[in-house]
Amino acid sequence: MIVDSALYRDGVRVDVDCDTGDLRELRGKATGDRDFVWVGLHEPGEEELAEVAEVFGLHPLAVEDAVKAHQRPKLERYEDSLFMVLKTLWYVDEDDAVETGEINLFVGDHFIVSVRHGVGSELQPARRHLEAQQGVLDHGPSAVVYAVCDAVVDGYTEVVQSLEEDVDEVEESVFSPGRTNDSQRIYTLKREIAEVRRAVLPLREPMGRFAHGTVAGIDAEAAPFFRDVADHLARAAEAVDTLDSLLSTAFDAHIARISIQQNEDMRKISAGVGLVAAPTLIAGVYGMNFQHMPELRWDLGYFFALALMVLTSGGLWIFFKRSGWL
Amino acid sequence: MIVDSALYRDGVRVDVDCDTGDLRELRGKATGDRDFVWVGLHEPGEEELAEVAEVFGLHPLAVEDAVKAHQRPKLERYEDSLFMVLKTLWYVDEDDAVETGEINLFVGDHFIVSVRHGVGSELQPARRHLEAQQGVLDHGPSAVVYAVCDAVVDGYTEVVQSLEEDVDEVEESVFSPGRTNDSQRIYTLKREIAEVRRAVLPLREPMGRFAHGTVAGIDAEAAPFFRDVADHLARAAEAVDTLDSLLSTAFDAHIARISIQQNEDMRKISAGVGLVAAPTLIAGVYGMNFQHMPELRWDLGYFFALALMVLTSGGLWIFFKRSGWL
Amino acid sequence: MIVDSALYRDGVRVDVDCDTGDLRELRGKATGDRDFVWVGLHEPGEEELAEVAEVFGLHPLAVEDAVKAHQRPKLERYEDSLFMVLKTLWYVDEDDAVETGEINLFVGDHFIVSVRHGVGSELQPARRHLEAQQGVLDHGPSAVVYAVCDAVVDGYTEVVQSLEEDVDEVEESVFSPGRTNDSQRIYTLKREIAEVRRAVLPLREPMGRFAHGTVAGIDAEAAPFFRDVADHLARAAEAVDTLDSLLSTAFDAHIARISIQQNEDMRKISAGVGLVAAPTLIAGVYGMNFQHMPELRWDLGYFFALALMVLTSGGLWIFFKRSGWL
Amino acid sequence: MIVDSALYRDGVRVDVDCDTGDLRELRGKATGDRDFVWVGLHEPGEEELAEVAEVFGLHPLAVEDAVKAHQRPKLERYEDSLFMVLKTLWYVDEDDAVETGEINLFVGDHFIVSVRHGVGSELQPARRHLEAQQGVLDHGPSAVVYAVCDAVVDGYTEVVQSLEEDVDEVEESVFSPGRTNDSQRIYTLKREIAEVRRAVLPLREPMGRFAHGTVAGIDAEAAPFFRDVADHLARAAEAVDTLDSLLSTAFDAHIARISIQQNEDMRKISAGVGLVAAPTLIAGVYGMNFQHMPELRWDLGYFFALALMVLTSGGLWIFFKRSGWL
Amino acid sequence: MIVDSALYRDGVRVDVDCDTGDLRELRGKATGDRDFVWVGLHEPGEEELAEVAEVFGLHPLAVEDAVKAHQRPKLERYEDSLFMVLKTLWYVDEDDAVETGEINLFVGDHFIVSVRHGVGSELQPARRHLEAQQGVLDHGPSAVVYAVCDAVVDGYTEVVQSLEEDVDEVEESVFSPGRTNDSQRIYTLKREIAEVRRAVLPLREPMGRFAHGTVAGIDAEAAPFFRDVADHLARAAEAVDTLDSLLSTAFDAHIARISIQQNEDMRKISAGVGLVAAPTLIAGVYGMNFQHMPELRWDLGYFFALALMVLTSGGLWIFFKRSGWL
Repeated sequence: MIVDSALYRDGVRVDVDCDTGDLRELRGKATGDRDFVWVGLHEPGEEELAEVAEVFGLHPLAVEDAVKAHQRPKLERYEDSLFMVLKTLWYVDEDDAVETGEINLFVGDHFIVSVRHGVGSELQPARRHLEAQQGVLDHGPSAVVYAVCDAVVDGYTEVVQSLEEDVDEVEESVFSPGRTNDSQRIYTLKREIAEVRRAVLPLREPMGRFAHGTVAGIDAEAAPFFRDVADHLARAAEAVDTLDSLLSTAFDAHIARISIQQNEDMRKISAGVGLVAAPTLIAGVYGMNFQHMPELRWDLGYFFALALMVLTSGGLWIFFKRSGWL
Repeated sequence: MIVDSALYRDGVRVDVDCDTGDLRELRGKATGDRDFVWVGLHEPGEEELAEVAEVFGLHPLAVEDAVKAHQRPKLERYEDSLFMVLKTLWYVDEDDAVETGEINLFVGDHFIVSVRHGVGSELQPARRHLEAQQGVLDHGPSAVVYAVCDAVVDGYTEVVQSLEEDVDEVEESVFSPGRTNDSQRIYTLKREIAEVRRAVLPLREPMGRFAHGTVAGIDAEAAPFFRDVADHLARAAEAVDTLDSLLSTAFDAHIARISIQQNEDMRKISAGVGLVAAPTLIAGVYGMNFQHMPELRWDLGYFFALALMVLTSGGLWIFFKRSGWL
Repeated sequence: MIVDSALYRDGVRVDVDCDTGDLRELRGKATGDRDFVWVGLHEPGEEELAEVAEVFGLHPLAVEDAVKAHQRPKLERYEDSLFMVLKTLWYVDEDDAVETGEINLFVGDHFIVSVRHGVGSELQPARRHLEAQQGVLDHGPSAVVYAVCDAVVDGYTEVVQSLEEDVDEVEESVFSPGRTNDSQRIYTLKREIAEVRRAVLPLREPMGRFAHGTVAGIDAEAAPFFRDVADHLARAAEAVDTLDSLLSTAFDAHIARISIQQNEDMRKISAGVGLVAAPTLIAGVYGMNFQHMPELRWDLGYFFALALMVLTSGGLWIFFKRSGWL
Repeated sequence: MIVDSALYRDGVRVDVDCDTGDLRELRGKATGDRDFVWVGLHEPGEEELAEVAEVFGLHPLAVEDAVKAHQRPKLERYEDSLFMVLKTLWYVDEDDAVETGEINLFVGDHFIVSVRHGVGSELQPARRHLEAQQGVLDHGPSAVVYAVCDAVVDGYTEVVQSLEEDVDEVEESVFSPGRTNDSQRIYTLKREIAEVRRAVLPLREPMGRFAHGTVAGIDAEAAPFFRDVADHLARAAEAVDTLDSLLSTAFDAHIARISIQQNEDMRKISAGVGLVAAPTLIAGVYGMNFQHMPELRWDLGYFFALALMVLTSGGLWIFFKRSGWL
Repeated sequence: MIVDSALYRDGVRVDVDCDTGDLRELRGKATGDRDFVWVGLHEPGEEELAEVAEVFGLHPLAVEDAVKAHQRPKLERYEDSLFMVLKTLWYVDEDDAVETGEINLFVGDHFIVSVRHGVGSELQPARRHLEAQQGVLDHGPSAVVYAVCDAVVDGYTEVVQSLEEDVDEVEESVFSPGRTNDSQRIYTLKREIAEVRRAVLPLREPMGRFAHGTVAGIDAEAAPFFRDVADHLARAAEAVDTLDSLLSTAFDAHIARISIQQNEDMRKISAGVGLVAAPTLIAGVYGMNFQHMPELRWDLGYFFALALMVLTSGGLWIFFKRSGWL
């Protein structure tokens, strides 16, 4: 589905006298030196993308990748055009889950085609923002590439922050006095972190190339801007690594706590057993059938025995309390 | 065993007026600039391969490797021909197991010899597919190398997907409420992942060289295609790494669950002990032989005692239920 | 907030006949070859920093980073000025916690602007110290960069020392005979070490570049001094790595101790059960109702039974003591 | 001890008219362009080696290394001769243990001196084999270096295979239903794997240099052969890494099994306690001394009580069996 | 404190007609091309070192490092002199502990100044040894640097051997049948290994530079000798890594043994409980008050009951013995 398509001239969106959906004609109008066309697609069908590919002369291998999605983040050159794959990430609060999408960019002479997969990470806000800023789109497709990378990496930062909050919650739960089973939560978080890592890590290499201004087809003057994005990317990668190793430690602490609780339970249980076993022994003693047992004939023998039981149990109770077993 | 052998001219399989099993004659017919012979062998005997080696002038060290199988994936140049070893992987559903085979390719001027070991990963479909596509075999042996690599790496992707499903199952089992023993399953999966890794990782280097178009004897124009394969390979490698570390975490979770279950069992057990110990104490008390024990003379003393027992046990039951011990 | 701003000429602070808060005029006075202005800001607002940026021609991306703080340590060149980010660390004794701040340096021709975030790591002492030393500020902004880096890295060393003391404490606690729960303490320390690592590690690359004297705008003669700082940084990084792996081992030892204590408790408990169960059995025996039980008629039968109980329990007590169960 | 020494001319062992033990004279006879002397020593004394060193002009540092053994595998150039250290490994079936020896090679113009330490890995078979093959020793000392490296690395492969069998046994033991204590076996295997790794890993660098044909003094034409050895070495290194990580996982599985068995034991024990505690309670009840207890007067009261006990225990038995506790 | 200072000419210690403590005069005498002065200091005060620094023109930053000690091992060039820091290690048998010291070397034209910190690793024996060997000191300060490095690295080897013995002891203790608490010992060893690693690892880089003969001021002809030292250093580093990972495995085995022992204890305990609970039940049965209980009237009823108890317990004893619970 074509979400939006437009011709930009001198950095400004130009009204054209043709249907912007007619990409061939639209492209034909980009005759000026600094004209370019930006076509935005969302989950295009194979045929739709084939048409776009024909108009802009996209390489079949790149097009195949863009249809299938589920690519690794990468930057590739096909003859005179660039093909870039970015993984988009967003955090779904309801599920405490990270979801992934994908953006493919075809960058060529006087055109950029963006293909988006998944529901999150829309590009329209980025386009509006670019159109609203003066002089930015003047830099041609490079500006769009920068804007998309910036938006995607900002998305990573947000996801990382949400994960940091999740890890804080897990941490609190692990060290709370209550009896919690945190292992599934930790596992799920580790799984999500692996997901984030698979989006973030492979992107560092292409972003670094942008930051060094050595990618043909990308304005070298944009390098400081890409350096900024590369920096945010590095920060996200570091944060994710830290979270992963914190979770491992939290897991160990979780295991330690289970052991400690088991120990405490065991001691409580044995104290409880002791509280019952002692009076049972006393009852057993006075249940013996010896002919000569003075206490048995005491008027208050029975009460004496009961008192003995209570005192013994009480004494044990105090003893266990003091030594921390109850 | 020679599975198939044919002469290709201008990308098309040519009918020859000799027995295609007579390799020497077949080779003699590949006189055109873009002619080449493709011989496909399956687990050839030492003598059979020696004959083929003589016809095509294969290097003895490479031939030795091709007979023995169990080589590491690699790409080597022997004088004017290339020798490539690929590990093939396929997933056997019945056993939930990964099996491995091996493909050796000898690539030279006007010929390619493929040697396959193991039952899976047949090459005939790939040959048929190549023959059916127009203009592809036109690129000579390079096209065959690409087709084989592509098929092999697609096999990796499928195996990785099956392993991902297995890991999902393990995960579900680990976090299911039931009492499962997942350690052997996890161990077996880790072992299979190690197998996959040994096939995938060493292949990255030669595939990268293909992707950079720097291997003499391989058409540099095929580089973008090999880049695609290299990309899939990288994806498989990453996925396998992720699976491995997820399994480690799942194992830890498994251990944590064992501990937690043990703790729960212990508490149930002690609650059970408590339910019996309390009435036993009561019985012990009324089994004492004091001469003055008022209850013993009550008409309903016995029933009173029984009621006391039931009440005590019932009270404990409620208490343990409420505190989560039963 | 402008903390201090001054003009230095030939390494000496010069009294100017204008308000030092009027940066534009102050900068105008730095006309000599070796004159430079040093402006120190503390958590400036966006507008305040914008003014400073205008006066000194700072790059908008760098300024944005300086406002937001929470950057990665880095060194970047924007046209003809340098932008450096350093994380500052200090140890808060009351909380046994590591806190972080940030220092941003803009270094250009005849000026240096330092922007500090957070309460710790003040720069005024460093400025006073520099002004007090003869001939140092003579080297221009490079001397200030060195002084700031030196102070920041000294701060790292102090923090690492405090963490080493904390680890020593944890170690002592883990191996003390008492029953301690060290896992939260270890977790917190690991978390702080991760914090330190995020400050220290990324700084090594820029510091190495200073130490090699290859950063344009920084006096190559200062290289040996930066080498010294780089060395301290490397030492801090190594120490932090060692601490991290010691903590992991301490954690394992903590877990081992929990297991051992549980085992000891279990044996104590069972010994206790034994001490009660044996006399209970004896009481049971003499509670049997056989008509012919000689002991029951003994005059001292009861005392014999009691003595038997005490002897049995006493014997068990000695046995358990000897075998280390009590 | 000189094991063997001979003069080779045009790849053939030549009968000389002097004592082959008189190395000076033997060396003097190696006058032809493709003549060379091969001296094989086994654990030579310091003096013996000093003599050999004098004859062939070996470097004192290399000689010192060759006397002491216990060197790291390495390849070093001393002026115009090469010095190589290889660790030999062999598996002693009786002890399931890996033993190590050492081979030192001095390679120079027209001579090669091999020094062997340890009982395994004899070189005489390799020499016989070389002498039996036509045209191989024609390549001079390089052929001997290749043959020795090949034999040593083949030894590694055999050791790795034996270790793989050991790991299979451990694996089987870990997952067998029996109660096995595998931790010492796993530890010993890990220790042996560390031994193997110390022999294998440092050898990769020199073998890689041979395989690239860039070592002066070694025939560049032998490169494909060394590439083969390097490949086997890489395979051994990979296999060893895989074994090591499999053992770690097996260890974890071992720990998990201990926990699970403990849990099962605990449940069996508690079920057993339950089977005894219930009838004890019943006996307690009928041991009470109430004057009005109807059952006590029943003719079959006693048998009723016994039946009650058996029924209760039997019911519990079935219950525990069904819930998997017995 | 100046330990020794002397003038060497043509490799021989020369008697000078001035106080060797008067360094300025001593230095003045080193006029020959191959003359040099070697000053050995032990824990010099700040002033003492300042004087030496003035005489030999040492760089203030290097001098500061030499006073403070606690530096990282490193090799640095300050203008025309070299500054080297080495960590010395020695093993104190009484404490089973590794202690560290430090040696600083200032190497310049015609002089070498060695500064030693800590009680171990004296340099005087090395000096005597050098003076006793003919022709070695002829190579000037390089020979001293080599001798010091060699002595220091030999010290590492000794420490590593002592640690290997300690690890063997720990290993034996872990796998001994007795009940040992090895975790503190393992922790301490890991801590010492970390100490050793911090001395050994950073030294590899400078030693490698010496071994390549690329350090200005160090005789390139000494390279093979430094290569030897570098080799020993590499061996020590490898050995330390192996020890560290063996200790980790030993720790795991220690934990496994604790679990197994706990399991065995638990089974012993339950068997013990069983041995007492069974006769208690029997006693309970014959303590019931039924009017019709045939056994109660038997003449030998009591002995029958006692025999029953003994038989039951004995039977259980045999059963538990056979199933390995006792």
